[in-house]
Order: sequence, then structure tokens, then C-alpha cells
Amino acid sequence: MFHAHGYAAHDSHSPLVPFTFERRAPGVNDVVIDILYTGVCHSDLHQAQDDWGGSLYPMVPGHEIIGRVTQVGSGVHKFKVGDLAGVGCMVDSCRHCSACKEDLEVYCEEGPTVTYNGRERVSGQPTFGGYSDIIVVDEHFVVKVSPELDLKAVAPLLCAGITTYSPLRHWKVGPGQKVGVIGLGGLGHMGVKFAKALGATVVMITTSPDKGKDAQRLGADEVLLSTDPAAMKAHGNSFDFLLNTIPVSHDINPYLALLRRDRTMAMVGVLTELDPPPAGINLIMGRKSVAGSAIGGMKETQEMMDFCAEHGIVSEVEMIAIQDINQAYERLVKNDVKYRFVIDMASLKNEVS
Amino acid sequence: MFHAHGYAAHDSHSPLVPFTFERRAPGVNDVVIDILYTGVCHSDLHQAQDDWGGSLYPMVPGHEIIGRVTQVGSGVHKFKVGDLAGVGCMVDSCRHCSACKEDLEVYCEEGPTVTYNGRERVSGQPTFGGYSDIIVVDEHFVVKVSPELDLKAVAPLLCAGITTYSPLRHWKVGPGQKVGVIGLGGLGHMGVKFAKALGATVVMITTSPDKGKDAQRLGADEVLLSTDPAAMKAHGNSFDFLLNTIPVSHDINPYLALLRRDRTMAMVGVLTELDPPPAGINLIMGRKSVAGSAIGGMKETQEMMDFCAEHGIVSEVEMIAIQDINQAYERLVKNDVKYRFVIDMASLKNEVS
Repeated sequence: MFHAHGYAAHDSHSPLVPFTFERRAPGVNDVVIDILYTGVCHSDLHQAQDDWGGSLYPMVPGHEIIGRVTQVGSGVHKFKVGDLAGVGCMVDSCRHCSACKEDLEVYCEEGPTVTYNGRERVSGQPTFGGYSDIIVVDEHFVVKVSPELDLKAVAPLLCAGITTYSPLRHWKVGPGQKVGVIGLGGLGHMGVKFAKALGATVVMITTSPDKGKDAQRLGADEVLLSTDPAAMKAHGNSFDFLLNTIPVSHDINPYLALLRRDRTMAMVGVLTELDPPPAGINLIMGRKSVAGSAIGGMKETQEMMDFCAEHGIVSEVEMIAIQDINQAYERLVKNDVKYRFVIDMASLKNEVS
Repeated sequence: MFHAHGYAAHDSHSPLVPFTFERRAPGVNDVVIDILYTGVCHSDLHQAQDDWGGSLYPMVPGHEIIGRVTQVGSGVHKFKVGDLAGVGCMVDSCRHCSACKEDLEVYCEEGPTVTYNGRERVSGQPTFGGYSDIIVVDEHFVVKVSPELDLKAVAPLLCAGITTYSPLRHWKVGPGQKVGVIGLGGLGHMGVKFAKALGATVVMITTSPDKGKDAQRLGADEVLLSTDPAAMKAHGNSFDFLLNTIPVSHDINPYLALLRRDRTMAMVGVLTELDPPPAGINLIMGRKSVAGSAIGGMKETQEMMDFCAEHGIVSEVEMIAIQDINQAYERLVKNDVKYRFVIDMASLKNEVS
């Protein structure tokens, strides 16, 4: 076993504080990773605060993890000591259901084992995430990372990246298509970059003219202000795909009006009720669809990492020290980040050394 | 021009009464139809009562029309005098948009001309529907009807039939699939028959054990009572397709839980808000979709009529006289019909002769 250091929430309302815990000894298929950078996902805050219920404490959040391999089990094939490695939202799944067999572990019928705030499948021990100095993960749930990319800006690809890449691929976004990305945050800014790299004409749909400008800097071809009824009407029935990254309950009806016949809006941000509710007529007239999409499977996560290396895609990040995590959470609530906080884990290692 | 007789609503709250009006003289592409039977769709009542706003009075409802051709324009190719003919929800469309070019006139980008409570494209004159003795329609919007079927039970195929057939075909329902039909009424009972004829295993999903039994008589393989939480749980994540025919606002979340990963629930009944609202998580976990579907195009409507002739499929009907229409509306409100009222138009002809 390894003595690990990290930062943990001990209940739903107190700040995260330093925490010492144990990582399992590496099994045959395990990779031991020295963590370099961990992205701060909004869901870290939701779970630390128990917004969705069922949170397990103490909780070490973090599921956008980049590090270097320091040890490998005897059955490990993909990695050797010294390799760069990435870990995302899952660290295990049942491996035998139809979803797992189709490389869609996130949809595992028994439920994937999440990187933190979950329990190990066999031992039932709580899982601890990436706000820590070390992690031990089965190599199936570890992806290779290109040394060509700016590593600190790679971390958010493991959640924000794959969550937006997967639906764009699943609904076959490509050249000749007009694609709207709704909302510019951790997810939305990756959606813009991916949709552009996939060859689509990309429209940023936002309430904020400032975000609109920033989206154009990131590659958006056009900005549609959802607060402008005339502009919304002018874009009616014109989109081939909409990626809706808004993380809170909102009215999707105006966005349905933007879709062309037989097209889909994929929801990736909001888990709660879509209130006010969508009206049947807005789906029926035009045979439109509202779908959801969760992260992505491990095979597709590796494909995304390779796509990013090929196209030079990384996240826009603001670096913080682990000691600043509670302040970062406060800013996250105010949507005050462009577009992802990433923890430089050297700050943790300096603290405990 | 033809002097036509029918029954009309003159405002949103009075009974339908006898009404005399004019039909246009047949143009080059027009077919004149002597109406034999007209089905009573729940939307007739909604529009007569102006439930959706914008109703045009006087209004002659009716868009499930079966009759015999009495006259044809010089350019008519499909029909000759004496042929049986069917008219559904549309009598015209723009003919040049992408939807019209793809035989999906119902999704016409300029909006199809509806059979009643609409306006003719060129003249702007109001359209009058099938609660009448005669109708004049462009042959493109008239389908051929097999003399082998029970004609009075064919009428509802023109709306209830195509509205359920089209989504079952669009989402490729067939052998080896488990398909749920939600709600047993005018639409639902056709959904059961079509899904069964297409080779699927059909589950009737209803709140009513009596309706469940009736659905089995109509071909359903199994009944799932949506009021039984244990049964709903047992069927969780097991359906390949859901056809939701419920015509009023309802909670779709329990039905989303029935869908397998990557599968779709198509809404065909409810035009209003889906309240309580669906939750994003119920779409995201399993990459599920909620879609809408409207009627069907003319090519598909003919395909459906031919499919019905081949498989001996007709609607379950209760015959009424036109003089009973207001009483039938009262029973419709109480859901007291198995499963479609059809007006025998001889009753109108006797009245006016």
C-alpha cells in the first residue's frame, strides 16, 4: 500500500483540508501514477457539497488527472515506467455487459466505478480522486498522453474533453454541417474547439456578448445571442446538431426551434429537470430529438487524446495551487474561470515534503 | 363549384350544426370525392373548441376521409371515376422545399395546408374537412384504398394509422425488438397492430388492466401496468423503442427508465408541455433520446395503406350518424370509445336529400 496525501471534503459544508489516506498496492493490471496536474470539474464542487445526495466522506475529488507512471503490474501492456498517463471519470466497470463489450464502459449496466465518491468493485473501499499525489488504476482505465501537448492544459480533456468529443462523434458532426454549441464554460469551450476541428461551421450560442467574442477567439465562426429574439428567429430550423452544455435547469424550447428537421440536440451539462418543460409540439414538428450523452468509453477517450495531439487541442486553463482549492470553488460558483482551473500538484508535494 | 353540406362549429363553445358551403370546381390535378366515412379524431374536438388557439370559424372538421371518386381533372393520373380514395390531414404543401422533395410534406418548411381549419395556398379560402358529403383535393394528397378492407374501419388509418406507422418505420421497428406502446386509444391501438405486424414483441404500457386485456386481444404480447413500480423496474432498460401516444401532459421520466441504451421514445400524442419536466440525467445515463413525429408524408401514407391491405389491418371503430357528433365529442372527452368513432356519411346525405 501507498501512503497518499491529498485534499478532502469531510462534510457537505466545510472547506477541503489536507488529508492522508492509503492507496492499494498495485495489482497485476494496475498502473501507479505520480499525479502532475488535476483539473477542477464543476461536478467536484457538486459532489463535495452533496448537491446530488449520497456523497461519501471523507471525499478526495478530482477526475481530470495527468501524471507519470512510476510502477506497473506484471500484466500491464500499455504502459512502462516514465510514460505519461491520463485518468478520467472511471476507474473500473463490470467488463462483461453489452456496454462494456462495446467499449462504452460509462454506460456499464452495473454502473462504472467512478474515480472518486464511489466504491471499489471488489473491496467496497471508497475511491479517492485526483486532488492527491498518487493514484493506482487498472490500465484499462488509463489513457496514453502525448508529450507534445502542454500537459497542464491536457488534464481537462479527461472529462470536459471526452464529454463534448463523444456526442460530436456519435452524431457524426463533420464538414458541411452547421453546429451550435450552447453555453461557454469548461464543456462549451472544448465543444467549440472539437466541432471546429471536425470541420463543422460552429456557432456559439450564449447570453453573453463577451463570451461570444471569446468563443470566436477559440474558433467559433459565428455568435448567436440567445437573448436576441430576431437573431434566434433568423437561425430557426438551421442547425444540424446542437451541443447543449448549460449545467443548470433551463428552457430548451427556444433551442429546439433552431434545429433542422430530423436533427438532435444532445444534453451534456444538466442533470436536473428541464424546467420550464419542453413542449411535445416542438419535437413533433420537424421530427426533432433531445438526447443525452455521458463522458465516453475508454477506447473513445484514447481516440480523443490522439485527436487532440494531432490537432494541437488543449483546454484553456488557469493554474492554481491545491491550497487555493476552496477559493477556486467560490469563483466556480460565480462562473469566474476561463475555462478550467487546473491544480499544479507540485503545490501539494511541496506542502507535505 | 359544388354546393356541399356538412356539420360545422361556429364558435368555440356551441354544438356543431348543419352547414352549407361551397367546394371549389376541380382543377387539372383535382379529384372530386363523394365521402362515405369520416373518422373522428380527438384533434377535431380540440380545434372545434379552439383549445390550441387560432381556430377559423365556421369550421367543418374531419381529416380521416374515405370516399369514392366521382370526377377527375384532366391531369389526374392515379385515379379514375369509381375508385376508392382516402384523404388525411393535409391537402396541399409548397412542393419545392427539402421536406416536400423528400416526400415528407407534413414537415413542409412553409407548412402544409391542413384539411380543415387552414387556408388554401393560392386563394386563401378556408379549408373545410370531412364532416361533409363531398371534397375536392389535389390527387397528390389522395391515397388509393383497397376494396378488400372494411371501408368504414379504414378511415382512421388516414390520421391515427399513419401517425403511428410512420415513427415505427422511421425508427426501424422489426423482428427481435421489444417495443412498448404507451396508451391505448385511437393512436395506441393502431400502434399495437402495426408494431405486431412489423414483427416486434409488443408490450402495451397502460394504467388500466382492462385496456391491457384489450390490447392483448389486438395483438400485444404483454401488458405493463405503469402504476406498478415493481413491474416498471423489472422492465427497466429493456425496450428497443417506445411509442408514446398519451395525448395529455404527463411525466415521461418513468418511461425513459424503460429504454435501453441508445434507444428512442417517440412522442406522437402530446403537443403541450411535458410536465413534470424530464430530467437531464435520465437522457444522459444511457444516451437516450426523446423525439417527436408528425403524421407522415403522402408516399408513406400510401405505403401504410398498402401495408394494411396486405396484413388485413384496420381500426377498431364505433359507427355514428353525423347527427350524433356532439354526443360523440362528449364521450370522447370521457375517453369512452373503442377506439375511434367513424361517421357514416349516409346519415348526412339522408338528412339533406
